[in-house]
Amino acid sequence: MTGAELAGSPPGAPDAAAIDAAAARIAPHVRLTPVLEVALAGRPVTLKLECLQVSGTFKARGAFNRLLAAREAATRAGTPPPQRVVAASGGNHGIAVALAARALGVTADIFVPGTAPAAKLDRLRALGATVHAEGPAYAAALAASQAFAAAHGALVSHAFDQFETLAGQGTLAREWGAQSPALDTVLVAVGGGGLIGGIAAWFGAQRAAGRPAPRVVAVESEGCPTLHDALAAGRIVEVRPSGLAADSLGAPRVGERMWPVAQAHVAQAVLVPDAEIVRAQGWLWREARVPAEPGGAAAFAALACGAYAPAGGERVGVLVCGANVDPRDLARAAEGG
Amino acid sequence: MTGAELAGSPPGAPDAAAIDAAAARIAPHVRLTPVLEVALAGRPVTLKLECLQVSGTFKARGAFNRLLAAREAATRAGTPPPQRVVAASGGNHGIAVALAARALGVTADIFVPGTAPAAKLDRLRALGATVHAEGPAYAAALAASQAFAAAHGALVSHAFDQFETLAGQGTLAREWGAQSPALDTVLVAVGGGGLIGGIAAWFGAQRAAGRPAPRVVAVESEGCPTLHDALAAGRIVEVRPSGLAADSLGAPRVGERMWPVAQAHVAQAVLVPDAEIVRAQGWLWREARVPAEPGGAAAFAALACGAYAPAGGERVGVLVCGANVDPRDLARAAEGG
Repeated sequence: MTGAELAGSPPGAPDAAAIDAAAARIAPHVRLTPVLEVALAGRPVTLKLECLQVSGTFKARGAFNRLLAAREAATRAGTPPPQRVVAASGGNHGIAVALAARALGVTADIFVPGTAPAAKLDRLRALGATVHAEGPAYAAALAASQAFAAAHGALVSHAFDQFETLAGQGTLAREWGAQSPALDTVLVAVGGGGLIGGIAAWFGAQRAAGRPAPRVVAVESEGCPTLHDALAAGRIVEVRPSGLAADSLGAPRVGERMWPVAQAHVAQAVLVPDAEIVRAQGWLWREARVPAEPGGAAAFAALACGAYAPAGGERVGVLVCGANVDPRDLARAAEGG
Repeated sequence: MTGAELAGSPPGAPDAAAIDAAAARIAPHVRLTPVLEVALAGRPVTLKLECLQVSGTFKARGAFNRLLAAREAATRAGTPPPQRVVAASGGNHGIAVALAARALGVTADIFVPGTAPAAKLDRLRALGATVHAEGPAYAAALAASQAFAAAHGALVSHAFDQFETLAGQGTLAREWGAQSPALDTVLVAVGGGGLIGGIAAWFGAQRAAGRPAPRVVAVESEGCPTLHDALAAGRIVEVRPSGLAADSLGAPRVGERMWPVAQAHVAQAVLVPDAEIVRAQGWLWREARVPAEPGGAAAFAALACGAYAPAGGERVGVLVCGANVDPRDLARAAEGG
C-alpha cells in the first residue's frame, strides 16, 4: 500500500466521533433517506429507504466520506488533494465512487470482474469513470486495482474494509436511530460487511454510552454466507459466493476491520434462500412501490419468510439498502409473487 | 341520489376541522408517506412520496375516509353500516375503493370504462371487487354506477366530487405541512380536482387562520387542462381528455365542490407536454429510484421543464401522487431520458 492510498485512514474501525465527523462531512452530498412504516401480515415494520440514496445504494456514504476525508487530510498536511481514485467493484461501490468522484472533480478508475454485465459498465462510463475489466471474479479486480493505484499514486477507495468506508456507512445508523428511536431490532444485509460493520459500530457505541440502541441482525443469502459462517466458526472464513444476490452480497470474506465489531455487536446472523429474496422484491414493489435489488430485499425476506422470527411486541426495522435493479426484473418479481 | 349514497356527506368542501377528523379516522389504515429532498439542477426540491401510499396513490385517503365516515354516521343514527360500495373509475380510485372495502369487510362494485386495460381489471378483481365494464369513457361508467347504486341502495364513493373524498385528500396537505413547514410553493397534479381541492382547502384554512402555508400550483398535461381552462374562463368548462396521462388525470371537468376552493386558493395553473412527463418519469427513476405513473410525474415535470419557474430562493415541494405504473414503462422512460 502506498502513502496516498492510506492517506488519512486510521487503523481499526470507527468510533462514534468518527461517524459524527463523517455525517457532517458527507451531508451536503448525500440524501437523508426517509423511513416508511408498512404492515407485513398485520405487524408494523419500519423500512429505512436507503434505496432512495444518491447512486441508488448506501455505498454513496462511504465513497463520499473516503474522498472528502482524504481531501481534508491533504489540506491539513499542506499537500495536494487526491486527483485520482481507484476502486474494485462489480457494481454498487464502483457506481458510488464514480458518482462521488464526478461530484468532487476527481478522476475515477473502476476495476470490475470480467463477468460484470454490460449495463453496469455503461452506467460507470456514463458517470465519467474509466472502466477496467479484470479476471473472472472480484479478487482479480481487487488485485489489479491495487497494483494500478500503487503505480499511479492514486487513492484507493475500498468497498468495505476501510476506516472511512465503515464510518460513512455508520452514518446510516446514526440517521436511522434519530428517525426511529424505538426500534428493538434492525435487519441488515451483509456482503463484505462494510454496511453492517458501520451500523454495528454506531449502535454498539450508543449502547456502550448507556443510550438505547437496537439489536443488529445480519441477513445473507444462502449462497453468500460470509458473516454467518464466520460467526459460526469464530473466525473469518472464505466462501465461494453464488446465487442471485452474488453481485451485491458476494464478497468471499468479511473485512478484517469489521470482524471484531461484528463479534461484539451483531446479535445474530440468518440466511435466506434466493427464492425468498425474489418474493420479497415482489412484495416490496406490489404492496409499497419500493424498488429493491436482490441484496436490497434480502433483509426484508428474512422477516417475510420467517428466517428471522421476532417476538410478540418486538419493533423491527428493515434496511432496504439498494435499488440498482432493472425495472423489468421488478416486474417479473412482482408478477411471480 | 339515494339516502344511502349521501349518508353522512355534508354539502360543500371540507374545513380544517373536517380534515382533522378525516386524518384521525383513516390513520390506522393509511401510511404516513415520507418526504425526500433531492437536487434538480442544483436546486433543492422536496418530494412528497405519496406514491408509497397503500393502493399506490393518494386515492386511498379519500376512499377510506368515505367508507369510515359512512360507518360512523350509521352508528350515530343507529342504522346498519354500509355493506356495499360503488365507484366509477378507470383506475386508481377504483383500486383504492376496492382495497378499502376489502380492509373494512364491505362488498365493492367498480364501474370502469370499456377501454380500461386488462391489467387494471385483473388488479381490481384480485382485490375482491366485482368489475363492471360500461361504455367507452368515464361518463358512461359514472352514470351506470349511479343507477346501480340507486337500485341496490349502495354507498357511492365518488372519485373527486364528494365531501369525504376532498377531506381525505386534504389529510395529505395536513401531513405534508407538518413535515415540510418551510415550503413556499407546492406543485400538485390535477385530474377531477379532488386532490388539489383537498390540499387547497387545508392550506387555505391555515392561511385564513394566520398560519404560514405554501402557495398551491396546479399542474395538468396539455391534453387534460380541466382546471387550467376553468380558471382561464372563470367557470367550470368541459374538456376532452387525451394523451399519456388521460388515464389518471383525465376527468372531463373539475368537481363542483372543489371549484370555489380552487378559485380562492390555487395560485396558478400550468400545463406540461406529454414528452416532458415521460422525461420526468425517467429522471425520478434514474436519479432517485422514485417510481411514478404519468399523472404522478406531471408535477415534477412542470419544475423540470420550466413550465413552473420558481424565483431564486423559493422553496418548492413537488407531490409525487401515484406509482401505479408497469415497471417496464419506467425502464423505457429511464432509458429514453
